Amino acid sequence: MGIIGGGYMGKAHAVAYSAVGAVFNTRLRPRLEMVAASTRASADRYCAEFGFARAADDWAQLVRDPRVEAVVIAAPQATHRAAAELAFSLGKPVFCEKPLGASIEDARAMTASAAARKCINMVGFNYIRTPASQYARKLISDRVIGDVTWFRGEHTEDFLADADTPASWRTKGDSNGTMGDLAPHMINAALALIGPISSVMAQIETVHKSRGGEPVTNDDHAQMMCRFDSGAMGHMFFSRVGTGRKMGYAYEVTGTKGAIRFDQEDQNALWLYKAEGPEAERGFRKILTGPAHPDYAPFCQGPGHGTGYQDQIIIEARDFLEAIADDQNRWPTFADGLAVSQVVEAARTSNSAGVWTPVQGD
Amino acid sequence: MGIIGGGYMGKAHAVAYSAVGAVFNTRLRPRLEMVAASTRASADRYCAEFGFARAADDWAQLVRDPRVEAVVIAAPQATHRAAAELAFSLGKPVFCEKPLGASIEDARAMTASAAARKCINMVGFNYIRTPASQYARKLISDRVIGDVTWFRGEHTEDFLADADTPASWRTKGDSNGTMGDLAPHMINAALALIGPISSVMAQIETVHKSRGGEPVTNDDHAQMMCRFDSGAMGHMFFSRVGTGRKMGYAYEVTGTKGAIRFDQEDQNALWLYKAEGPEAERGFRKILTGPAHPDYAPFCQGPGHGTGYQDQIIIEARDFLEAIADDQNRWPTFADGLAVSQVVEAARTSNSAGVWTPVQGD
Amino acid sequence: MGIIGGGYMGKAHAVAYSAVGAVFNTRLRPRLEMVAASTRASADRYCAEFGFARAADDWAQLVRDPRVEAVVIAAPQATHRAAAELAFSLGKPVFCEKPLGASIEDARAMTASAAARKCINMVGFNYIRTPASQYARKLISDRVIGDVTWFRGEHTEDFLADADTPASWRTKGDSNGTMGDLAPHMINAALALIGPISSVMAQIETVHKSRGGEPVTNDDHAQMMCRFDSGAMGHMFFSRVGTGRKMGYAYEVTGTKGAIRFDQEDQNALWLYKAEGPEAERGFRKILTGPAHPDYAPFCQGPGHGTGYQDQIIIEARDFLEAIADDQNRWPTFADGLAVSQVVEAARTSNSAGVWTPVQGD
Amino acid sequence: MGIIGGGYMGKAHAVAYSAVGAVFNTRLRPRLEMVAASTRASADRYCAEFGFARAADDWAQLVRDPRVEAVVIAAPQATHRAAAELAFSLGKPVFCEKPLGASIEDARAMTASAAARKCINMVGFNYIRTPASQYARKLISDRVIGDVTWFRGEHTEDFLADADTPASWRTKGDSNGTMGDLAPHMINAALALIGPISSVMAQIETVHKSRGGEPVTNDDHAQMMCRFDSGAMGHMFFSRVGTGRKMGYAYEVTGTKGAIRFDQEDQNALWLYKAEGPEAERGFRKILTGPAHPDYAPFCQGPGHGTGYQDQIIIEARDFLEAIADDQNRWPTFADGLAVSQVVEAARTSNSAGVWTPVQGD
Ligand SMILES: NC(=O)C1=CN([C@@H]2O[C@H](COP(=O)(O)OP(=O)(O)OC[C@H]3O[C@@H](n4cnc5c(N)ncnc54)[C@H](O)[C@@H]3O)[C@@H](O)[C@H]2O)C=CC1
Ligand SMILES: NC(=O)C1=CN([C@@H]2O[C@H](COP(=O)(O)OP(=O)(O)OC[C@H]3O[C@@H](n4cnc5c(N)ncnc54)[C@H](O)[C@@H]3O)[C@@H](O)[C@H]2O)C=CC1
Ligand SMILES: NC(=O)C1=CN([C@@H]2O[C@H](COP(=O)(O)OP(=O)(O)OC[C@H]3O[C@@H](n4cnc5c(N)ncnc54)[C@H](O)[C@@H]3O)[C@@H](O)[C@H]2O)C=CC1
Ligand SMILES: NC(=O)C1=CN([C@@H]2O[C@H](COP(=O)(O)OP(=O)(O)OC[C@H]3O[C@@H](n4cnc5c(N)ncnc54)[C@H](O)[C@@H]3O)[C@@H](O)[C@H]2O)C=CC1
Repeated sequence: MGIIGGGYMGKAHAVAYSAVGAVFNTRLRPRLEMVAASTRASADRYCAEFGFARAADDWAQLVRDPRVEAVVIAAPQATHRAAAELAFSLGKPVFCEKPLGASIEDARAMTASAAARKCINMVGFNYIRTPASQYARKLISDRVIGDVTWFRGEHTEDFLADADTPASWRTKGDSNGTMGDLAPHMINAALALIGPISSVMAQIETVHKSRGGEPVTNDDHAQMMCRFDSGAMGHMFFSRVGTGRKMGYAYEVTGTKGAIRFDQEDQNALWLYKAEGPEAERGFRKILTGPAHPDYAPFCQGPGHGTGYQDQIIIEARDFLEAIADDQNRWPTFADGLAVSQVVEAARTSNSAGVWTPVQGD
Repeated sequence: MGIIGGGYMGKAHAVAYSAVGAVFNTRLRPRLEMVAASTRASADRYCAEFGFARAADDWAQLVRDPRVEAVVIAAPQATHRAAAELAFSLGKPVFCEKPLGASIEDARAMTASAAARKCINMVGFNYIRTPASQYARKLISDRVIGDVTWFRGEHTEDFLADADTPASWRTKGDSNGTMGDLAPHMINAALALIGPISSVMAQIETVHKSRGGEPVTNDDHAQMMCRFDSGAMGHMFFSRVGTGRKMGYAYEVTGTKGAIRFDQEDQNALWLYKAEGPEAERGFRKILTGPAHPDYAPFCQGPGHGTGYQDQIIIEARDFLEAIADDQNRWPTFADGLAVSQVVEAARTSNSAGVWTPVQGD
Repeated sequence: MGIIGGGYMGKAHAVAYSAVGAVFNTRLRPRLEMVAASTRASADRYCAEFGFARAADDWAQLVRDPRVEAVVIAAPQATHRAAAELAFSLGKPVFCEKPLGASIEDARAMTASAAARKCINMVGFNYIRTPASQYARKLISDRVIGDVTWFRGEHTEDFLADADTPASWRTKGDSNGTMGDLAPHMINAALALIGPISSVMAQIETVHKSRGGEPVTNDDHAQMMCRFDSGAMGHMFFSRVGTGRKMGYAYEVTGTKGAIRFDQEDQNALWLYKAEGPEAERGFRKILTGPAHPDYAPFCQGPGHGTGYQDQIIIEARDFLEAIADDQNRWPTFADGLAVSQVVEAARTSNSAGVWTPVQGD
Repeated sequence: MGIIGGGYMGKAHAVAYSAVGAVFNTRLRPRLEMVAASTRASADRYCAEFGFARAADDWAQLVRDPRVEAVVIAAPQATHRAAAELAFSLGKPVFCEKPLGASIEDARAMTASAAARKCINMVGFNYIRTPASQYARKLISDRVIGDVTWFRGEHTEDFLADADTPASWRTKGDSNGTMGDLAPHMINAALALIGPISSVMAQIETVHKSRGGEPVTNDDHAQMMCRFDSGAMGHMFFSRVGTGRKMGYAYEVTGTKGAIRFDQEDQNALWLYKAEGPEAERGFRKILTGPAHPDYAPFCQGPGHGTGYQDQIIIEARDFLEAIADDQNRWPTFADGLAVSQVVEAARTSNSAGVWTPVQGD
């Protein structure tokens, strides 16, 4: 493996590829071959700390290195497209962190490039991979809660809630705003759980318009109402100023025969209500994930013992490796990442125009 | 007291006026003088069961009765306006259940009539009177959570979630739909907690379009995004098909320095987050209501011992009696009920037009 | 009705007898005839505030008054026995607050007196009357959770957690200590839910041995292990220094086929786990009380709308009135109160002796 | 590393030693050198699956192998002592899963052997290593909740709740019963959080006395009251028949100035109550673990993102490696494991004798 970036996600992927073989008994056993970072010093540090064989201060060097057989892009959005395109041109599989590039054009180009070169490609929507959310998907598609009538999702955190936090790269550029950074996770969840979105009506805004005297040029929070192709009605909210919320990736799905609730802040529990049995015994049940749920057993034989953030990345790594081994893409591919970007794009248009806006396929 | 209606709410008010004196040591000590219902038989039954002195099968007879000094309207929306107008013409105070009349015209006329006759008037938004929600109001107005940036409210129940429930009066007529029946409670909460709403963007729909072969002519669920005068952004959702939700009157208020969460299904708890103190010690705290919170102590000296639905109606009765004793209106008056109806009206317009719609004052 | 005491519980009963007729359509319709308190001034104040016809500064005067047809004792433990015995000697029904008298001898004498005179008698264990706890009883006796193997109960509050709270009558005398004051509620619950207790092993202690220089002569917290006649194992804990707990009347019942959890701090929810159905769907379900649960519907037609502390006292009042109307005792009688006192007694003996101690019947 | 056992815990340790270097940037970078199992076939399978270099079907071969520099014992209790003693005789550091050996004699011998040979030794109490429980320890030792007055702990699971589960090695032998298998984790927590236990009063029993016709010879659940050296009172409960509980490692600590609650089923939350500030604002706060809490940051930079079961084992591996690197034991050593075994022993004695039993140091 070659991993571009050794920050928050670069490290997470390095750990994941160290552990994934032992956890999932994968056919391919990855080696941490090379890490790239923006400086030589940091690349060397990551190399030593995470246990890579070699370091590069240039992502292109990493992508081109013959011993790097697969590339993980865990660097800022601006690098995604060029790195992916180069890798595809060399026929190498690429895993790219969300969102897919810095713009919808990037997402389109990256998806097209992957398709043209028929390379394995995957985008990093990790939260949907918890055993609980995978199981929620299954319950919904098995129609345990009947027809879905309502979906409410949010991805809320509070890392910029404090007005005194100074401006930084995070407060500049669309792709670093809430719609660029947080929304994709929950939009992806909506698409995975309920299906395609036909139109949206959004409101996007900057709460703290300047920080430390510097203007903030991207959005702090945003909401959108949406209509799914299935007819279901929905709403999503995204915020990086959601005081008190730390990992507010949460959703509620209401169906004609039941309902599901989930909150990533208690990621090992899924709440299920079934409209069956005597009225007096009905209620939301708190299901603790365990070996009976998707991808849990390899982590622990005991139910309720729990998986965590890092484990999502390990599941992701397993899927990427298996896709490579099978030479067969696994969900979510770049095309799925692009579908998310299309919803984001429609939301931006809707916000400007103040009207319901259809989501454009490509 | 004279109470029009002896059903769900008629009984609740009858119990409330039986108990309110002992609970709150009110200056006025009400007598259950007369109850009116749509039939003689039911009126007589209510009279005996709830302990009224006399019964009437005609609301006008009750309103006109000289020994009825104050009128509570707890009959369907269609009776609200005429009963209130008659009472005001006789100079009698009126408490009217929400919503104010069957249409915005009714609400306007009733408010005008109350003002013209300078009669005491009050509208029945009981949920906002729990100790927890009163305390939430206080926390927000004391700026404990800073500037409010986001409000999310819902009023969700599931009494019509089952598609097999047959059509009835509930499934006919705007004022019995979700926007007419449930939305007013949460809109009132939004106005009380955050302040006036300047514009809304709504989506209103009927999920089960026919029941037992009969068409359903009002809405099952609805959502709206809103902008408050203060600049805060908001969202509300209302549903009578919210499978699993029994009393889903719930809200979240995010501010720059804290946040509040409340769910009526656990009405004795208020969740408060304050962005202060060491990061490691921060978290939403679950405050159990007790004597330190508004209107709790008269019910019980012990914190955490809890109040219930009926107690809200007793608090409401206290306010109505005190308003009469002082000849000074107490919140929420008909004008406040009208303000709610104006938001509902704007939502209906927005839903039809598909655009953001300003809320029109009168 | 005549009510002895107008404090915490005296008021609660006054409110309850004002409301009970309207709520439950009881055959007997009580009148608030007379209230007694320790001083003339306070008795007069209670009389006016709660709406009694007359006041007495002597409980014996109240008991003897010919228009007082039933007596509620809501004064301190020291008055219970004499007041009850006098009432029984006059053939009057008596409702007595828990615990039954100031000592086990009192409890025995009161029970014997009630039996000898064949008078209606009831003891005030209100918490077990919530719809949730009544339903828990039913679930257990219907064997929904199979054979009970384990019971854990607690009654914890924190009104004396602060070491700086000065000494008072509460900190003196066995019957005002935690074993006298709080333990009876939960012991009664244990007996009601699981059945008779055969033996106990207890530990009773005073945490803050002096307050403001004055010695504390009763217990702050206590625990006991117990064995039920059924063979089930159990544990109870009682505390008035349980920092953070406001109404910690909570229990967990584990059975061979399921489990139940309840906490009075969220009194409208009962948690039920059933070991049936696919493993992946199992979990504790949070059942919100509603019209499908015992004694809920008369308070409100809507599920999840909730009852509160005062409503328990109303249910209790209904039972007392119905017992009188039928001339047939209803649970829990003085004999049930005595059974609780016997467990308390065994716990005290066990604590002193440091060994398992059988619970002595009388 | 050489790991004895490739089952539940053997795998967990294999994964942990694969990941720990990248997560914690440890000085020592372990290699998965050899795995031993009870058969050649299983050892070979583990070797391939987890990525070991070599396999052994004999633990002694593994311990003696010169390239195995440190030994992890993750095989059944019966192997612990002999394996540890052999390793110490060769001067190798040993990590041993809980409980320490199959009997208190084993625990004593192992501890003595470690001391005699001055070898690094550690025992596998992983649950206390979550960021939440480490933080709870810190809060208590920083006296944030004042003096501890009450501790309640439980370790409850339901893997043998079903009476139809057949007898197996789990249902035979003291060290596989609840006191042997589950109790040590929570006793260790009690010692870590509150301090030494001076005496206990226990009740230990077998709920399902036979399974599939075969007698069950060890305990299904057990409870004990205890007195800590500090004077605090406590209670613990352990069960493998705790229907509905999956990972019920839970505790409550009450102090004079606050309280703490924790439940491993929601391992990323710690509940803290502080008796300070206005009464109206007090409540248990739900603190989500994050980078501000011990050992969280290396797993994820985002608070609330969560750690899981496997991460505890990684933290444990870090401590073992650091102990080796420093040639300085880290908590918990074999001596700490022995202290736990001494409490278990006192509990067994108490259960037989029916009296309070002092915990014997060695
Ligand atoms: N899936 C998830 O939960 C999360 C995903 N992300 C995504 O991961 C990506 C990386 O974000 P973070 O790890 O938070 O950033 P970070 O700032 O922590 O780390 C970025 C890394 O990229 C390296 N880098 C920057 N420019 C480079 C270049 N030109 N060539 C080579 N290396 C370069 C830096 O040296 C650094 O090591 C982003 O696309 C972000 O959206 C970020 C956080 C969470
Ligand atoms: N605040 C709250 O939580 C709630 C408020 N409501 C409101 O209370 C009002 C009554 O609703 P419910 O009690 O649910 O209805 P219901 O159907 O239970 O009772 C209606 C009562 O009105 C009487 N009535 C009907 N027409 C009458 C007439 N022409 N003259 C005299 N009496 C007449 C009926 O006999 C019956 O006793 C409505 O405005 C409703 O929106 C209803 C439920 C909850
Ligand atoms: N079921 C429950 O939840 C509760 C039950 N209780 C029980 O209720 C009883 C009363 O307790 P509280 O109401 O808390 O006490 P309190 O101190 O609030 O009120 C006691 C009342 O008794 C009156 N009183 C005292 N001595 C009297 C006498 N010799 N003659 C006539 N009146 C006299 C006082 O004037 C006062 O009105 C106790 O037995 C207590 O154990 C108390 C609180 C809660
Ligand atoms: N800390 C924790 O959370 C847990 C700790 N444990 C402890 O871990 C230890 C192992 O338990 P599990 O992994 O559950 O057992 P397991 O039955 O899943 O695996 C036992 C392993 O030991 C191997 N083994 C057995 N006898 C052997 C021998 N003579 N030589 C070499 N290998 C041998 C087996 O081949 C197997 O791989 C026990 O001491 C247990 O108490 C177990 C589960 C959880």
